[in-house]
Amino acid sequence: MDRSSSYSQWLAESYVHKMVSQHSRHAASWRRLQLAQAKLKASSRTSALLSGFAMVAMVEVQLDHGMSEGWLIAFSICTTLVIVIHLLALMVSTCILPNVEALSNTGHSLTDMNDFGEDSLHDRMHCYIELAWICSTGLGILLFLVQVAILAWVRFGLYTRNAAIASTAIILPAICVFIAFGITFYRRIISHKYEQSTRNIEELEAIASDLGNGTTLRGGVHIA
Amino acid sequence: MDRSSSYSQWLAESYVHKMVSQHSRHAASWRRLQLAQAKLKASSRTSALLSGFAMVAMVEVQLDHGMSEGWLIAFSICTTLVIVIHLLALMVSTCILPNVEALSNTGHSLTDMNDFGEDSLHDRMHCYIELAWICSTGLGILLFLVQVAILAWVRFGLYTRNAAIASTAIILPAICVFIAFGITFYRRIISHKYEQSTRNIEELEAIASDLGNGTTLRGGVHIA
Amino acid sequence: MDRSSSYSQWLAESYVHKMVSQHSRHAASWRRLQLAQAKLKASSRTSALLSGFAMVAMVEVQLDHGMSEGWLIAFSICTTLVIVIHLLALMVSTCILPNVEALSNTGHSLTDMNDFGEDSLHDRMHCYIELAWICSTGLGILLFLVQVAILAWVRFGLYTRNAAIASTAIILPAICVFIAFGITFYRRIISHKYEQSTRNIEELEAIASDLGNGTTLRGGVHIA
Amino acid sequence: MDRSSSYSQWLAESYVHKMVSQHSRHAASWRRLQLAQAKLKASSRTSALLSGFAMVAMVEVQLDHGMSEGWLIAFSICTTLVIVIHLLALMVSTCILPNVEALSNTGHSLTDMNDFGEDSLHDRMHCYIELAWICSTGLGILLFLVQVAILAWVRFGLYTRNAAIASTAIILPAICVFIAFGITFYRRIISHKYEQSTRNIEELEAIASDLGNGTTLRGGVHIA
Amino acid sequence: MDRSSSYSQWLAESYVHKMVSQHSRHAASWRRLQLAQAKLKASSRTSALLSGFAMVAMVEVQLDHGMSEGWLIAFSICTTLVIVIHLLALMVSTCILPNVEALSNTGHSLTDMNDFGEDSLHDRMHCYIELAWICSTGLGILLFLVQVAILAWVRFGLYTRNAAIASTAIILPAICVFIAFGITFYRRIISHKYEQSTRNIEELEAIASDLGNGTTLRGGVHIA
Amino acid sequence: MDRSSSYSQWLAESYVHKMVSQHSRHAASWRRLQLAQAKLKASSRTSALLSGFAMVAMVEVQLDHGMSEGWLIAFSICTTLVIVIHLLALMVSTCILPNVEALSNTGHSLTDMNDFGEDSLHDRMHCYIELAWICSTGLGILLFLVQVAILAWVRFGLYTRNAAIASTAIILPAICVFIAFGITFYRRIISHKYEQSTRNIEELEAIASDLGNGTTLRGGVHIA
Repeated sequence: MDRSSSYSQWLAESYVHKMVSQHSRHAASWRRLQLAQAKLKASSRTSALLSGFAMVAMVEVQLDHGMSEGWLIAFSICTTLVIVIHLLALMVSTCILPNVEALSNTGHSLTDMNDFGEDSLHDRMHCYIELAWICSTGLGILLFLVQVAILAWVRFGLYTRNAAIASTAIILPAICVFIAFGITFYRRIISHKYEQSTRNIEELEAIASDLGNGTTLRGGVHIA
Repeated sequence: MDRSSSYSQWLAESYVHKMVSQHSRHAASWRRLQLAQAKLKASSRTSALLSGFAMVAMVEVQLDHGMSEGWLIAFSICTTLVIVIHLLALMVSTCILPNVEALSNTGHSLTDMNDFGEDSLHDRMHCYIELAWICSTGLGILLFLVQVAILAWVRFGLYTRNAAIASTAIILPAICVFIAFGITFYRRIISHKYEQSTRNIEELEAIASDLGNGTTLRGGVHIA
Repeated sequence: MDRSSSYSQWLAESYVHKMVSQHSRHAASWRRLQLAQAKLKASSRTSALLSGFAMVAMVEVQLDHGMSEGWLIAFSICTTLVIVIHLLALMVSTCILPNVEALSNTGHSLTDMNDFGEDSLHDRMHCYIELAWICSTGLGILLFLVQVAILAWVRFGLYTRNAAIASTAIILPAICVFIAFGITFYRRIISHKYEQSTRNIEELEAIASDLGNGTTLRGGVHIA
Repeated sequence: MDRSSSYSQWLAESYVHKMVSQHSRHAASWRRLQLAQAKLKASSRTSALLSGFAMVAMVEVQLDHGMSEGWLIAFSICTTLVIVIHLLALMVSTCILPNVEALSNTGHSLTDMNDFGEDSLHDRMHCYIELAWICSTGLGILLFLVQVAILAWVRFGLYTRNAAIASTAIILPAICVFIAFGITFYRRIISHKYEQSTRNIEELEAIASDLGNGTTLRGGVHIA
Repeated sequence: MDRSSSYSQWLAESYVHKMVSQHSRHAASWRRLQLAQAKLKASSRTSALLSGFAMVAMVEVQLDHGMSEGWLIAFSICTTLVIVIHLLALMVSTCILPNVEALSNTGHSLTDMNDFGEDSLHDRMHCYIELAWICSTGLGILLFLVQVAILAWVRFGLYTRNAAIASTAIILPAICVFIAFGITFYRRIISHKYEQSTRNIEELEAIASDLGNGTTLRGGVHIA
Repeated sequence: MDRSSSYSQWLAESYVHKMVSQHSRHAASWRRLQLAQAKLKASSRTSALLSGFAMVAMVEVQLDHGMSEGWLIAFSICTTLVIVIHLLALMVSTCILPNVEALSNTGHSLTDMNDFGEDSLHDRMHCYIELAWICSTGLGILLFLVQVAILAWVRFGLYTRNAAIASTAIILPAICVFIAFGITFYRRIISHKYEQSTRNIEELEAIASDLGNGTTLRGGVHIA
């Protein structure tokens, strides 16, 4: 008899069937967890780097009484904004990342998977994670570019206006390129998520029809 | 006969049953351990970064006899507080993290799991871990923001008061945003833990009822 | 009977057959994912390093009223370009790398592999990943070399023109070597990809012929 | 017959029995090894950080002929002590950590476990590992706090005594808090180790009684 | 019958036989891949470190009009050479390392092993990898030593010639020691590779003779 | 019949027997490889750190015409020696570590183990690895301590001799402590290796006697 082959087939199909029926729901949640963890890590590294640059600029730059007040005010505002934005991102990341990492390291068994189905912590804090990431990546880098332009004015303004004007003439198009990339990237993400949801719905419908067809084979193995 | 299928079923259910009956108690302890380890790591990284900034500010900033005494006193107090708070967090993290990491790397077998049931070291030191984390993340970042404001006064105060006032006008709302986020985050954590405990109690009750129903199948395999 | 040997043979060949038939399509996609992840990591590390050097140069270099305006303008333009190019690469890397890492950590099962067949996010963003990598590695390092030459003029120009001329006389051939290496490397990559595609087409043709020969053995195991 | 179930039971119990009988003795040694490795890593990271701060303070701080000799002597003594203490910890860590890491990466098989039973290198060097860790974590951080206070006097003393007095007024309570935490942590560790030893002795007694009960089942499988 | 033992023997020997017959060819390729990856990582770390030192030297060193022109020219040439050499190594590493890492992470299955047999990318780029590694490790460190000597002349030359002469008197023997070590290491590598190739040829000849003896046993299992 | 239990026993004992008979010879070689890898990593980290400190000291320290020539010469000699010693260690580590890492990542199969039996590369380069490690850990840290003392004289010597004398009065005992620890550590390592060799010889003798007793059981399984 072909018990061995049908047993192995039954084992394989039961396993696949069980995995697939839970797969869509848990895999989406698992992927969101991994994405949150990767975003928080990337944002904390970038924030640490850029806030370090801003601190060095604030502490080390040599000021002079000949500098115009306007540029000093602008430099002060800009540097403070950069440090605040990046420390906000760093704080959110340091608060939420331990919880996400702990979930990621322990949430392997099926019983834990239930936590993903019922709003886990990282799903509730999702808007904060997105906020931290946009601050650090988008707004933070933009503000840092502005600070580079002001730094050029503060450093070179005493000696030659043209150097500062040339630096600003490079920063302004760069800011436009950054904003354009940010918008394009955001629209791609939205459309990709829409397509993924559509595909998930189609998969679930396929599984539902398979469930109807699959009961015969399982019963056959039991009887044999 | 279907010994193979019932044997595999018995094996699977025994394994699941054994895991689940211990799962709730040990998984909660394992998750607390992972959370403590992740918190200590995050807090030690942030503390090293911010204490480095404060040290650089203290050593490198150029003072002048024209500076008002008040701001020098404020700068001195603030910088010292930042360094002290972050070194406290760093010390707690360096004391406790090796013990937590050693537990995390060795506590895999069922015999070690007993340690988690009876108050492990990291559970007793739990209040210190929380203290270190709040110091580093919450209080430490707040104090660092205050230091940035004072640094602006020390750096720009000689040249133009408006730059320093503008910087302070950005820091004060930022401090409010930080405090608001800290309170919101703390309340979300508390409510999430409450819901988790409620769900655990429900799970234990479900397992208790399953235990009553599951003995028949186990006895069946033994006889066959 | 030799059921055990033919069963094991059937199991081995079914596994190999299933893996191979999907292997080409998924392995290529998996390899592109790993390549994208490695490129983004390498580009973000190099960009962080070189933008740090440029910031230090901008903040710390001691200027003098005796310096010629031309070199100050050139220094300002060059430093700003280096910082902008590397922050662009850093931003693209920080935006896309979390998504790529999340895919890489979760995309193991066969169901996820379908995502690779239907244009995944990293395939659509492929041109941006390539752009970030070329900016950071190619253009970014070239611009940094130019900045080193201008820095030599700014630093040594006041004291001795010959030092600056000697430095430029080293940088210009170095730029040619870099461009030559870049072109050579790009051509090798293109030819390697062409050969890989040719080899893949040959493999698929071999599998198609194997499929025709392999059905007899599979049917034999079912009957026995 | 139920050979399969009794065979699997015999296999499981033999494995568990073999692991448990060696578990207590080897797990304790394995845990001490992991703890030593984690302590040495943490101490080398903290030492590298704090000795870097002390070096920066020694090299960069601007001295003045107006400074009182007493504070210069105190600054010199303190900075040298901090660097020496942390380099001592770094040297012990760099000497012993490779041996501990090599043991940790290779000590997996049962034959290697014998090395743990007979005093391994890290057990003999245990007092040095503890010394390095106490130096780096306890004494090193305390001395660094003292250095921060003296640095405040050196930096602000010329301008305003009150800033330095305020800084000292913060450091002195902080030193008391650190000493209090150190003593509390040390006492918790001692009591935890005492409880663990007591629990180990109880476990060994339980295993000894199980050994007497377990021989019947093993003999039964052999005969069947 | 002893089908179980002969089946297990057949399984073991088939596996070993299959692995060995491919082992020599693929293991050598796999080892070259691992070696290339490790070399590129080590070279990029060393290059980042030493180019950072050179940049700091170029930006921070205080020049004086009293310095002799010769030493300024030498300092300028040397610093520029060090930065160029290390950026060349960094560029090669950043271009090739992603491709090598992607191959390393995906090249596990037998189908991928075919890529190793037919010249993989890293084999073609082998001369560039060796060039980058020699630049960074050998030439780069030598040039950095020369730069240290020139830096001593630039820093101490104004105050006392003897300090600079003493420094040069240490650097010159050090350069000889480095060159001697480099030559010795290169010769050891060459002789080790020659011995490995000789041993591989002997292994292949042994396998060829085994192939003739092993066919009887395989045929025996098929018939039984 | 008890074929299953004797088969499993035969399988377990064959495996253990095969592992043990090769274990002593290969485990010792494997452990030396891991030890070499850990030593080279630790030495390269410490060397990078201390050479960075020495470079910063050389570039940033403010010299004065009032300084005595003797101390400038001593400072120049000491700083150059520290940088040379640590760059030597860094070069040896960067040359040998890739080869060791490649061996470590690929040397898993039994065929590769033969390489360990016949002098592998890292065994021949063993004296260089030891030399690099002693330079970096022992001599390098000692010289750095001496440099700290000389730096104190250079920094504080102009203002107050007592500060520099106090600093030297701390460094001299520290150097004695370091030398004492180095000698004690070296003697412990030697005695530990002697004991390990003695224990290995005893193990081999025990295995030789087991070989004589173990052939009966193996022959029994073959016949059954």
